[in-house]
Amino acid sequence: MGNRSIGKVKKNYFTFGGKKSDRLLLESGIVFGPITIAYETYGTLNVKRDNAILIQHTLTMDSHAAGYYNNSDKKPGWWDNLIGPKKAFDTEKFFIICSNIIGGCSGSTGPSSNNPDTGKPYGTEFPFISLSDMIKAQKKLLDFLGIKKLFSVAGGSMGGMLALQIASDFPEFTASVISISAAWKQSPMQIAFSEVARQSIIRDPNWNNGNYYEKQIPKKGLSLSRMIGHITYMSEISMEEKFSRRLKNKKFSNSFDIDFEVESYLNYNGNSFVDRFDANSFLYITRALNYFDVSEDKLIKNYSDIFPSFLLISFDSDWLYPHSYSEDIIHFLMSKGVNTTYAKIKSSYGHDAFLLEQEKESGIIKNFLERICEENEL
Amino acid sequence: MGNRSIGKVKKNYFTFGGKKSDRLLLESGIVFGPITIAYETYGTLNVKRDNAILIQHTLTMDSHAAGYYNNSDKKPGWWDNLIGPKKAFDTEKFFIICSNIIGGCSGSTGPSSNNPDTGKPYGTEFPFISLSDMIKAQKKLLDFLGIKKLFSVAGGSMGGMLALQIASDFPEFTASVISISAAWKQSPMQIAFSEVARQSIIRDPNWNNGNYYEKQIPKKGLSLSRMIGHITYMSEISMEEKFSRRLKNKKFSNSFDIDFEVESYLNYNGNSFVDRFDANSFLYITRALNYFDVSEDKLIKNYSDIFPSFLLISFDSDWLYPHSYSEDIIHFLMSKGVNTTYAKIKSSYGHDAFLLEQEKESGIIKNFLERICEENEL
Repeated sequence: MGNRSIGKVKKNYFTFGGKKSDRLLLESGIVFGPITIAYETYGTLNVKRDNAILIQHTLTMDSHAAGYYNNSDKKPGWWDNLIGPKKAFDTEKFFIICSNIIGGCSGSTGPSSNNPDTGKPYGTEFPFISLSDMIKAQKKLLDFLGIKKLFSVAGGSMGGMLALQIASDFPEFTASVISISAAWKQSPMQIAFSEVARQSIIRDPNWNNGNYYEKQIPKKGLSLSRMIGHITYMSEISMEEKFSRRLKNKKFSNSFDIDFEVESYLNYNGNSFVDRFDANSFLYITRALNYFDVSEDKLIKNYSDIFPSFLLISFDSDWLYPHSYSEDIIHFLMSKGVNTTYAKIKSSYGHDAFLLEQEKESGIIKNFLERICEENEL
Repeated sequence: MGNRSIGKVKKNYFTFGGKKSDRLLLESGIVFGPITIAYETYGTLNVKRDNAILIQHTLTMDSHAAGYYNNSDKKPGWWDNLIGPKKAFDTEKFFIICSNIIGGCSGSTGPSSNNPDTGKPYGTEFPFISLSDMIKAQKKLLDFLGIKKLFSVAGGSMGGMLALQIASDFPEFTASVISISAAWKQSPMQIAFSEVARQSIIRDPNWNNGNYYEKQIPKKGLSLSRMIGHITYMSEISMEEKFSRRLKNKKFSNSFDIDFEVESYLNYNGNSFVDRFDANSFLYITRALNYFDVSEDKLIKNYSDIFPSFLLISFDSDWLYPHSYSEDIIHFLMSKGVNTTYAKIKSSYGHDAFLLEQEKESGIIKNFLERICEENEL
């Protein structure tokens, strides 16, 4: 375990909607439940219950943002360098919550969960869910944890968009928003890459219209979708540094087998993805992301005095979520008199930077949160 | 037919290698033949036979670079605005040749051609071919046409790389080289996109290890590979202009069907690609491109005095073949005392620009060729 690690953590489960009256009214009009949410917490909720920070995960991550489940774990949670004692998200000060989104496949209710009406996985019978629906479900968890207002909500990539969605849907519910490597709506290029990734799953005969749980899973299509993703997460420079034109073996194979290291990397990551992620979850979540749009007046619906303070971070080599997208948000918020802080970080890692440049993010996030503490007398 | 069109043209076929002694020694060591090359010519070869320009096509184009086959054709050849009477490649002055590469599927021998030994299409029995092999085959055609030296060789994207390959393999064989939106070796990102495109074909069960000609073709995989390609051919700005987040219908479908115009565009272009291109050709050609590398000393192997003059053109929004790749070539050639001209053209069209910005390319190419005419007293 790393220095200053939060140490051992465990995944918890919260279920609601057992009673019909307690179910979730989705944006589509469907009433859905019961819903289970997998979540982890680090640190302690204070007496005033005003020190809670909600961490939002990315498309393929989960509630395990920090710490270790077991002593034998090789890796800690995905944002462990940022979450822990005296770290940016200081667990000696804050109560950190990270929950798996609904629609996901890491403990929260999603297409691979059993439909209680049939006893079988939902598959494509699972209702369509939006980012707003994911937030609504999280609010049920926060209610259960006794949190009436967040101190902050933070995340990168999809997590950064979920953070913006909270600001749009419940601006008075959080004192601050930290949105990293994100956008306030998906661009046509992002939608295009999603569509190709989805089609690679849908066109795999094993997908079988989503009914594959008791059969062969659509491995080939799902791993292909991940290979596409990985290209977009890197930058031209990081690929040059990581792979250049290096070969796996000494000579060209004169075949369609793996010759280049970059091909090996993509195939390896594609293949390992199928062991940890559900194809239908990938379809549902990418679709929700495509529909996501909190641009301009959709971000600030009512010009009330109470609006969270914002920290936005972008990385200069990220071409999937270019820094100009963060700057569009910042300029809009500034024009509306919202308290904003913005950092464009130099990095060669592309979109992956928000996971890899935790050192560079750390001081920026720490100082931002300290200022919000002062303003809120925490 | 457009103004100043070359008018009606026809596809010709040249076959060699009927005798074993006349076959092609491929870079892999295999001796291959017979080989047919489909080609078109526009204009007239002069008496001194020194006014020939070879046009190289892209990955999925063919020998039909200009003019019309029939009066009813809706579109002329793919570079018609540049090739014709008084155009940049002036057919009143030059003898223009464009031939389909071997390995292709538009008349030249490729994996979909019949193997004379079996009477069935080669499929993956087709030998691996490199860009050098494609050039060697073209030289047989040029020999047949009586051309001892080219006035120029020109092309964009893969065509630009084939032009560089001629300079590398036969520097004394051409007076000039015009390479547009190209690179002197494929980058890891280009290899990565190729790998994903190839995997989308290979993972389609209908690909059947390349034996599909008498069965179902791998439509789903081949169209998916084209969808990936189309994303990389556009720029963020051109996608924003062309599609933004516009929907096909008024409302979100809350499904995985086509919702956005960009999805519709990709699916349409993917589907129409399967009617005009062979999946095995796509595999063979992209593999040859991945192996392509004429960087630095591989471009100029012998520092003889006779080396062609170069014109390089790049487009500022092209992220698949960024302008820095052209600049690497230009700076190297300049350092070696080679006669060079370079233009970085402003365009929002991304990699597609070299096909769409023919107006902007026209004057640059025309002036370059006029200068080469003066230097060569043509």
